[in-house]
Amino acid sequence: MEIYVLAFNGSPRKDGNTAKLLDYAIKGAKYEGARTKIIHLYDYNIKPCTGCLCEDIMKCKYPCTVEDDDMKQIYDEIIKAHAIIIATPIYWYNVSGPTKNLIDRMTVFENMIYTDGKCPTEGKVAGVIAAGNDSGCIAVISNLYATLNSMGFAIPPWALAYKNTMRLIEEEKNRILDAANVGRAVTTMAKLLKNGPDYWFDSKLITKIGDKENAKIS
Amino acid sequence: MEIYVLAFNGSPRKDGNTAKLLDYAIKGAKYEGARTKIIHLYDYNIKPCTGCLCEDIMKCKYPCTVEDDDMKQIYDEIIKAHAIIIATPIYWYNVSGPTKNLIDRMTVFENMIYTDGKCPTEGKVAGVIAAGNDSGCIAVISNLYATLNSMGFAIPPWALAYKNTMRLIEEEKNRILDAANVGRAVTTMAKLLKNGPDYWFDSKLITKIGDKENAKIS
Amino acid sequence: MEIYVLAFNGSPRKDGNTAKLLDYAIKGAKYEGARTKIIHLYDYNIKPCTGCLCEDIMKCKYPCTVEDDDMKQIYDEIIKAHAIIIATPIYWYNVSGPTKNLIDRMTVFENMIYTDGKCPTEGKVAGVIAAGNDSGCIAVISNLYATLNSMGFAIPPWALAYKNTMRLIEEEKNRILDAANVGRAVTTMAKLLKNGPDYWFDSKLITKIGDKENAKIS
Amino acid sequence: MEIYVLAFNGSPRKDGNTAKLLDYAIKGAKYEGARTKIIHLYDYNIKPCTGCLCEDIMKCKYPCTVEDDDMKQIYDEIIKAHAIIIATPIYWYNVSGPTKNLIDRMTVFENMIYTDGKCPTEGKVAGVIAAGNDSGCIAVISNLYATLNSMGFAIPPWALAYKNTMRLIEEEKNRILDAANVGRAVTTMAKLLKNGPDYWFDSKLITKIGDKENAKIS
Repeated sequence: MEIYVLAFNGSPRKDGNTAKLLDYAIKGAKYEGARTKIIHLYDYNIKPCTGCLCEDIMKCKYPCTVEDDDMKQIYDEIIKAHAIIIATPIYWYNVSGPTKNLIDRMTVFENMIYTDGKCPTEGKVAGVIAAGNDSGCIAVISNLYATLNSMGFAIPPWALAYKNTMRLIEEEKNRILDAANVGRAVTTMAKLLKNGPDYWFDSKLITKIGDKENAKIS
Repeated sequence: MEIYVLAFNGSPRKDGNTAKLLDYAIKGAKYEGARTKIIHLYDYNIKPCTGCLCEDIMKCKYPCTVEDDDMKQIYDEIIKAHAIIIATPIYWYNVSGPTKNLIDRMTVFENMIYTDGKCPTEGKVAGVIAAGNDSGCIAVISNLYATLNSMGFAIPPWALAYKNTMRLIEEEKNRILDAANVGRAVTTMAKLLKNGPDYWFDSKLITKIGDKENAKIS
Repeated sequence: MEIYVLAFNGSPRKDGNTAKLLDYAIKGAKYEGARTKIIHLYDYNIKPCTGCLCEDIMKCKYPCTVEDDDMKQIYDEIIKAHAIIIATPIYWYNVSGPTKNLIDRMTVFENMIYTDGKCPTEGKVAGVIAAGNDSGCIAVISNLYATLNSMGFAIPPWALAYKNTMRLIEEEKNRILDAANVGRAVTTMAKLLKNGPDYWFDSKLITKIGDKENAKIS
Repeated sequence: MEIYVLAFNGSPRKDGNTAKLLDYAIKGAKYEGARTKIIHLYDYNIKPCTGCLCEDIMKCKYPCTVEDDDMKQIYDEIIKAHAIIIATPIYWYNVSGPTKNLIDRMTVFENMIYTDGKCPTEGKVAGVIAAGNDSGCIAVISNLYATLNSMGFAIPPWALAYKNTMRLIEEEKNRILDAANVGRAVTTMAKLLKNGPDYWFDSKLITKIGDKENAKIS
């Protein structure tokens, strides 16, 4: 079965360093046989999350209460994807605003643990690219790793690539290699996870372990 | 083949919240058939990293230039392990000092990419537990995720558990469930990765992609 | 002279936990005699940063190349303010999307070091509030501290307040106290900094120190 | 009155990049008239924090329950200092192990809010330097800012300097300038804060505000 790798470019520029590194990740994914697609987030209207789950946790689920924007089609691509790659420019040691809106709106998937007993992003795979001229790349990547993993994404070895100097990306051949390997790694991992368990989070696990006292979840 | 899950308790207390959550992770790992071992870091003499790779990158490799401490036996357990779980108390939004020394000394494995062309921790699996009475858990977990992944560890879905309130851990049944699932997830992932590739990072990938111009790594 | 404290509510809700904590910060600021204003970011149209400084560093300056949104009036308030307080809900261990757009668009001030030799936010004061039901508060605050300080803001002692449990904010009296003290602290600091130096970053300092070799900045 | 700036070198090397940047910070502090001292942490025996406050919050106070190491003399220097500068090498996107032990052991000061009603580090000033050959500098600085501010330290504008490339520090003249300005800024801020309030955190503030309902702290 073909692996589908969905890539997000969170930069306003389609030929900038973020996009260039992402292109290499796409090449790495294709080399492993993946079908790929790039979504340039600045081309889409993605409204900010309205945090409605604070008032009613059952309201926050795909396809989201926010209407009249382009998120629905992005949601549908994520559902189809076996792996995603989020590439963002580094803006103040953090993702770009549109990348943040994407992340926040993806809450609908994670919250379906509560509304539907199953999170649609569980067991998918993720990699991350962060590009800037100076510092902050690891701060970005760390945040995205914790976030994506909390949404149920697996992270394959060395799923990160970044640019953190003033040098041209063309001079940073090791970074290009890292980026290509991000694409290869998420594809490789996605293949392996097809043989994975039906669910990665077992809500009955305490009972199964035989710990009667703690089996009843609060 | 049996999966070996190696767990680190970075807390000075063997019956505190960190250790209790780690015990549940161990139960989750055992439920999936893993062999397990807990190393209480405060029982070991782990000297700090001396950063010798700054002067000579070829010096930093297993079993480390630092001598006369207990790290050698920990290295040997890590080499044997298919998965590790790092559990740490939250000290100032960060790991404990002995946990930091463990992490820093694990540089020998990562740096063997340069000295030996292969990192011994590549393709192993990692999960993280952070326990405190207040804030900082995600700051700890984010740092450990980025670190462990940069050492070649894969991170399975929902590989994190934490405690971040004043409540007794016994009252935090969801946190106990999370911790048990960390043990289950790393074991499950380790089984899947046995069928993984020979290497996760392909240093020839740019050449293979056919990008002659960038194939020569700086 | 009166101190002007400008507060941002980055939450979609005007009566949620973020807003409630911010209200206490405002009370603390007023107690110290400050004039205050709250800007609810979700009421404003703030377009994302387009990163134009990557192509021409001289383009990024107040009032920004992005047009036809509401940022101009926010810029003008920031210029007038002696202190700002950024209050954000915790969305994925991070600020909300609109808060991120605010931060990214504030680049125009920081970048005026390069375009005008002086950053308008230098020597102003900042405090931070982050509200959620669970984890991530310190991750948010750490990012904002590093960001705001890199824009030239001073951070007074204990300039942080957060909510990180499911409990009602009304039950979290220590958090309310923390928030009130954020308002007090930024006001108190702003008073002291009126007697501060003309510039906090001295671009001639290496020369003044007498280090002729390193005086010429690259 | 003379300002005393206490600087910590968290690197094992006394002539490495961390130390070199710190030397420039010292020069900047001296230029503003400060008395200075550098403590090389690797020369001191600093045992890890034992987290005893988890069992009895009243036990954690200066001079610490941990005995027979060199921390007592460091505590005494911190008490005398008006400002501190923490310089650390970047080890895995984080401080070095000995720097972490220093931070963890400084908990005695912060916890005296509870034991003595007053934190000895309140109203002191802090700056941070992080040196490495690649990424992680902002992750380190962000953690230290949140930590030090939570201990009551004020952070002056641009109190950060770092090195994050393979280039020699001698070629990074802007980084040298940044470091010198860290020393200048903490000294300048320390002078201003001498006219500061008796206490920065007002535990009676809710009562003073007139909020009777919330005045009673839990």
